[in-house]
Amino acid sequence: MKIILVGASGTIGKAVDTELSARHEVVHVNRTNGDFQVDIADPTSIERLYEQTGAFDALVCTTGKVHFGPFEQFTSEHFELGLRNKLMGQVNLVTLGLKHIRDGGSFTLTSGLLNDDPIREGVSAALVNGGLEGFVHGAAITLPRGLRINVVSPTVVEESLPAYGSYFRGTKAVPASEAALGYAKSVEGAQTGRVYRIGWSRDH
Amino acid sequence: MKIILVGASGTIGKAVDTELSARHEVVHVNRTNGDFQVDIADPTSIERLYEQTGAFDALVCTTGKVHFGPFEQFTSEHFELGLRNKLMGQVNLVTLGLKHIRDGGSFTLTSGLLNDDPIREGVSAALVNGGLEGFVHGAAITLPRGLRINVVSPTVVEESLPAYGSYFRGTKAVPASEAALGYAKSVEGAQTGRVYRIGWSRDH
Repeated sequence: MKIILVGASGTIGKAVDTELSARHEVVHVNRTNGDFQVDIADPTSIERLYEQTGAFDALVCTTGKVHFGPFEQFTSEHFELGLRNKLMGQVNLVTLGLKHIRDGGSFTLTSGLLNDDPIREGVSAALVNGGLEGFVHGAAITLPRGLRINVVSPTVVEESLPAYGSYFRGTKAVPASEAALGYAKSVEGAQTGRVYRIGWSRDH
Repeated sequence: MKIILVGASGTIGKAVDTELSARHEVVHVNRTNGDFQVDIADPTSIERLYEQTGAFDALVCTTGKVHFGPFEQFTSEHFELGLRNKLMGQVNLVTLGLKHIRDGGSFTLTSGLLNDDPIREGVSAALVNGGLEGFVHGAAITLPRGLRINVVSPTVVEESLPAYGSYFRGTKAVPASEAALGYAKSVEGAQTGRVYRIGWSRDH
């Protein structure tokens, strides 16, 4: 399979690359380096990416920005970052990728546990993750040509604890290589409309 | 309690009004009529509303627009309606209401079943509803002054079947008066960060 990996140089992206390159052709896409570049917040940049990559079998996105900060200090601009980048950036990777993806292909997006297991400064991440999961459920039942779509919702990964551990006290972390399994299941399996929760489970 | 009801003239709004006016002062807010008017997609309009209502004990929103249509025909503008109106409209009712709501007050928003139980033309509603539920989870744990926030996720209501029944074949409907119970539980109870599913349950 030809797999476009957006966010290939990130912590989870690198683990997904390791997992999938053993068996597939992985096209590495990042903001500023890799085989191709994209700014997922800019639909024109996404269109340009797909013109460069050509037809593909799977799109995996392991990146997306949201603002973290105290809820009472959130402004419209703070919410806007997550709406434009992690939420609609990933949605647009799907809608604009539809005319380039081959029959039976798949889209795999990334959410995260914060919509179900919230933390103090994560209200925008919670909103965005919930939106992504709703979108995946809604899109999966109407995708044409045997196309599939899933979203991976990892807990915090061990490699990120030095940077983000203070936000996630008490949350079990997993190695990025474990999160990568969710992407392999989505790309190489046959399921659609699923949220793959990695390292945590929803208890309510 | 002084309860601001945004969407008071809608199908669910009228039932919530009937349920809550028996015991409380309900301020009726709609787009074009009622005690006060608001366009929830416009933050300036929301600020003006709160200047007019003054301090209050509960905000209930039973309205919000999203575009319905086939996923493959969705444009950015189609998604934008739901993002600006039902999603960020309700988020902004909360963020901009924080400085007007009294200690111990509550916000009650409206999502719907489509993020967990999707229908063919409902991808934007699925995204928006998921975003709202994530937001409520994230906001609830950080609200100050004993403030609470919940979201009601009703199934389709019987009164709406003549207009929307064809979208919801096989979905059990409930009377709007039953959906209204979720709002009463949120406003008059003590829970926070909850999704009150009315007439359906999540099975996955």
